[in-house]
Amino acid sequence: MRVTLIKHTPEPELLIASAARLCYSASGIEQIVQRMTPEEVDRMLDQLLSSGHLSPFEHASFSFGVEGISRAASHQLVRHRLASYSQQSQRYVSLRRLEYVVPPTIKERGALQQEYEAAMESVHRLYLRLLEEGVPAEDARFVLPNATATRLVMTMNARELMHTCSIRLCVRAQWEIREMFALVRAEVVRVAPRLGRELKIKCDRLGYCDERESCGLYPLKGEVLPGSA
Amino acid sequence: MRVTLIKHTPEPELLIASAARLCYSASGIEQIVQRMTPEEVDRMLDQLLSSGHLSPFEHASFSFGVEGISRAASHQLVRHRLASYSQQSQRYVSLRRLEYVVPPTIKERGALQQEYEAAMESVHRLYLRLLEEGVPAEDARFVLPNATATRLVMTMNARELMHTCSIRLCVRAQWEIREMFALVRAEVVRVAPRLGRELKIKCDRLGYCDERESCGLYPLKGEVLPGSA
Amino acid sequence: MRVTLIKHTPEPELLIASAARLCYSASGIEQIVQRMTPEEVDRMLDQLLSSGHLSPFEHASFSFGVEGISRAASHQLVRHRLASYSQQSQRYVSLRRLEYVVPPTIKERGALQQEYEAAMESVHRLYLRLLEEGVPAEDARFVLPNATATRLVMTMNARELMHTCSIRLCVRAQWEIREMFALVRAEVVRVAPRLGRELKIKCDRLGYCDERESCGLYPLKGEVLPGSA
Amino acid sequence: MRVTLIKHTPEPELLIASAARLCYSASGIEQIVQRMTPEEVDRMLDQLLSSGHLSPFEHASFSFGVEGISRAASHQLVRHRLASYSQQSQRYVSLRRLEYVVPPTIKERGALQQEYEAAMESVHRLYLRLLEEGVPAEDARFVLPNATATRLVMTMNARELMHTCSIRLCVRAQWEIREMFALVRAEVVRVAPRLGRELKIKCDRLGYCDERESCGLYPLKGEVLPGSA
Ligand SMILES: Cc1cc2nc3c(=O)[nH]c(=O)nc-3n(C[C@H](O)[C@H](O)[C@H](O)COP(=O)(O)OP(=O)(O)OC[C@H]3O[C@@H](n4cnc5c(N)ncnc54)[C@H](O)[C@@H]3O)c2cc1C
Ligand SMILES: Cc1cc2nc3c(=O)[nH]c(=O)nc-3n(C[C@H](O)[C@H](O)[C@H](O)COP(=O)(O)OP(=O)(O)OC[C@H]3O[C@@H](n4cnc5c(N)ncnc54)[C@H](O)[C@@H]3O)c2cc1C
Ligand SMILES: Cc1cc2nc3c(=O)[nH]c(=O)nc-3n(C[C@H](O)[C@H](O)[C@H](O)COP(=O)(O)OP(=O)(O)OC[C@H]3O[C@@H](n4cnc5c(N)ncnc54)[C@H](O)[C@@H]3O)c2cc1C
Ligand SMILES: Cc1cc2nc3c(=O)[nH]c(=O)nc-3n(C[C@H](O)[C@H](O)[C@H](O)COP(=O)(O)OP(=O)(O)OC[C@H]3O[C@@H](n4cnc5c(N)ncnc54)[C@H](O)[C@@H]3O)c2cc1C
Repeated sequence: MRVTLIKHTPEPELLIASAARLCYSASGIEQIVQRMTPEEVDRMLDQLLSSGHLSPFEHASFSFGVEGISRAASHQLVRHRLASYSQQSQRYVSLRRLEYVVPPTIKERGALQQEYEAAMESVHRLYLRLLEEGVPAEDARFVLPNATATRLVMTMNARELMHTCSIRLCVRAQWEIREMFALVRAEVVRVAPRLGRELKIKCDRLGYCDERESCGLYPLKGEVLPGSA
Repeated sequence: MRVTLIKHTPEPELLIASAARLCYSASGIEQIVQRMTPEEVDRMLDQLLSSGHLSPFEHASFSFGVEGISRAASHQLVRHRLASYSQQSQRYVSLRRLEYVVPPTIKERGALQQEYEAAMESVHRLYLRLLEEGVPAEDARFVLPNATATRLVMTMNARELMHTCSIRLCVRAQWEIREMFALVRAEVVRVAPRLGRELKIKCDRLGYCDERESCGLYPLKGEVLPGSA
Repeated sequence: MRVTLIKHTPEPELLIASAARLCYSASGIEQIVQRMTPEEVDRMLDQLLSSGHLSPFEHASFSFGVEGISRAASHQLVRHRLASYSQQSQRYVSLRRLEYVVPPTIKERGALQQEYEAAMESVHRLYLRLLEEGVPAEDARFVLPNATATRLVMTMNARELMHTCSIRLCVRAQWEIREMFALVRAEVVRVAPRLGRELKIKCDRLGYCDERESCGLYPLKGEVLPGSA
Repeated sequence: MRVTLIKHTPEPELLIASAARLCYSASGIEQIVQRMTPEEVDRMLDQLLSSGHLSPFEHASFSFGVEGISRAASHQLVRHRLASYSQQSQRYVSLRRLEYVVPPTIKERGALQQEYEAAMESVHRLYLRLLEEGVPAEDARFVLPNATATRLVMTMNARELMHTCSIRLCVRAQWEIREMFALVRAEVVRVAPRLGRELKIKCDRLGYCDERESCGLYPLKGEVLPGSA
């Protein structure tokens, strides 16, 4: 799996903080953008985050290249709707080679992995035969497995990144999409460390786990807030 | 494949027309809703449609049960973002039986269909073995094919239905998702005929085909509007 | 101010619970919809709510008539984007009579209220004069105040209603939009009591206040979860 | 009125074209981004535009500062929902000076303009008095006119910019929001000329006018496509 930040809004934290400052200020926009010091930017982000005023985070946008995730993972990923995707088509692109993902639980079981790989090769041979017989790629791909690797460009703004990370970094999420969002986070940290640190699991923001069973990272809500449902 | 309209906004056409009338009227809302005659509703819908003022169509919402489409189709479907989906999970539900879709281009080629079905059985056997060996369903499903049938509940408002039908009823769309939206259309026609008729392919609204090659239903834009790009 | 539920998805709670059940079940959709008992519906809603799995709530949609709120309030309202609005136009409708809202803080100050009303009458007279002089309504309305009453039809699904109520029922929100969402809530309670009860202020769900200062209803986060930021 | 492009995705056209190319290509993402020539970018944009495949345009994002538009215009503006706004608050910011917009139809009528300005001053005096009497700014502003100038930061991606320009550059739109989007367009042209040229009125794309009456720029649909509704 490979996640690369291709392009992003320059100076994303300054943009977010300036937009937020504008709401409460009588000054002009350019003046605000030009005069905010890094400390003021940090303080503003703190305020917005601690009080849940997240709309200014939408102004900063990040575009990633994502490669080598399974179609099982990409089907889950594209359920996030406040985002944009361009994904390699299995209708227009014939897969001469089959790249596929092997889940760790299968890798751990050596013998099974061999069967798994044999199965992959076998369906790929059938896929190629179907193409040869004149079946269009969009139909031949019906035999391809969920494991098949895919490529896509994904764009999300910082608010949606905060949202997706909050649920996709949780142990309840599928391991592969968790891994993917951990890489997304690392890429953002590289260019916007303050923002990157906010791409975190929901319990980290809530102060408790709101799932039915906790992984142990945080106590359940009922444990820390007795009397709450 | 099976598409069933489960629930929908009652009197959707009246609601749309009344909301639109409100924009241009000094009257109260309930008065408008109560007094619009079926003819006035029709005339208002005509006006909105012919002038592309589509936002009032958002007030009417339709929820469908969709069963027996492939995961190949559902992956395309959920790319439509102004909509809501609840889909049977391959992480939480183990598939004791494998239901799958066979594309017509494979059915047409008798011998291939047999191989196709044998391949389906073979991966399903592997899937079950993986489960037995303790591989979690979310990982075992990596071997399952795109052909695997899925079930989901989908909710769209009338504007998004108009949009999705406009591109998914076109011959450029995958045959299965076309079939699905033809059934969606038929369900809407049953309860809201005027609205249902507007769930149509984009060339039918444009008056020309804006794809690079026409299927023949409508001439290309350049043919009817010479001089246009 | 007047808020009326005009139309809504029939049996909204059953639809939400059935859609959620489908995710975890091997059964068919209609079977689920037909067989869920009211107790099972309630239990499913509890589970979804307590674990923050809110997407199934999107399937149920509610359309309200809203009348007699100020343009100050409607400008805030339409910032909620996962919603649909049809609002009486000040461009197409000339306001022969000026209906306007008087904030309680002005009503409380008797003498000021008189000045306030005199000012309203005075700008309305100017508005009418501008119309007479041939200024189009869309320009004459430049003199009309924020206080001017407006009418609109608003459609939101249950998830967005939960979100908007969570922030607009808070004391930090403007009094008028708070009042409006209290009426929205009451209308939903009437037809879907279980759902209606969930249209509540965010601290009620969180178990603490995440604003900088609490109104006293709940303690601040730092007070109940020491060590959290 | 003042519109400034504050920040934008770097190399927006390259990003859009690369994302689109990925859909149809077996190559890796970075390879595509690095190797596309300006001519290939142009050709890809042409293809996407002429066939209405607009989703790749969403990857490029533009953030503008907008100052000196009326609250009448901003209320219309924020109806565009696939966008993000941070607007100067009339609840948190007290307006010591009243900046306001004068419509051309009023400027043309010299005497009226004087009355208009007198009315502005008079309501502003009342506003200041209300503040003095202890009325909170959020209520005092009820007397402020639609004409009051506002400031905001607005972020839209290129697809939404194409959509908003298509309807807001039309003569049917309010003159002020038209002017604003003409400035938006000019700002985009400056940094991404190919893209900027596509921010155009809908008839320019359709090849005809789909409103009820044409301004004369393009003939009505029925005139160029006889037989169409
Ligand atoms: C024939 C065909 C081939 C395709 N091939 C590919 C492919 O190879 N690779 C691929 O990745 N996808 C492909 N797609 C999917 C396509 O790119 C869209 O993602 C999908 O059709 C969803 O449509 P939509 O974006 O118009 O709208 P929806 O998500 O249904 O949204 C409806 C409308 O809302 C607006 N909208 C929604 N969200 C946004 C936003 N964030 N910004 C701006 N406007 C927005 C747009 O006006 C849009 O038309 C294909 C689709 C078709 C029909
Ligand atoms: C552990 C886990 C298990 C899951 N299991 C299933 C499953 O079995 N079946 C299944 O179908 N899905 C499942 N999902 C997917 C889930 O239901 C969501 O569809 C997906 O996570 C997208 O998240 P979202 O809806 O919060 O937000 P996004 O689409 O990312 O949107 C972001 C936010 O915008 C708002 N929003 C966006 N669109 C709307 C709208 N139309 N109405 C109201 N608010 C909106 C919401 O506040 C939302 O949180 C699962 C997800 C997780 C993490
Ligand atoms: C000349 C003119 C007159 C107008 N008069 C009035 C009036 O009298 N009263 C009034 O209330 N409004 C009026 N409007 C506003 C208009 O109804 C729209 O609300 C506004 O233009 C926003 O445009 P939009 O809905 O196309 O898109 P956006 O919100 O910009 O969204 C972009 C696109 O995304 C899709 N989309 C976004 N959200 C949804 C959704 N929830 N469901 C389905 N599709 C969605 C649509 O394809 C849409 O075109 C007027 C607008 C114009 C230009
Ligand atoms: C007390 C108070 C004070 C305010 N003061 C100001 C002010 O001074 N200036 C100002 O401009 N606004 C102000 N607002 C408005 C505020 O910033 C939001 O624009 C408004 O409340 C809409 O809420 P929302 O963004 O959460 O959600 P909605 O538009 O209702 O959307 C619902 C959810 O969907 C998701 N979502 C929707 N669209 C996007 C997107 N494009 N990207 C990522 N996620 C998205 C988010 O999760 C969001 O919570 C204020 C609001 C309140 C309650």
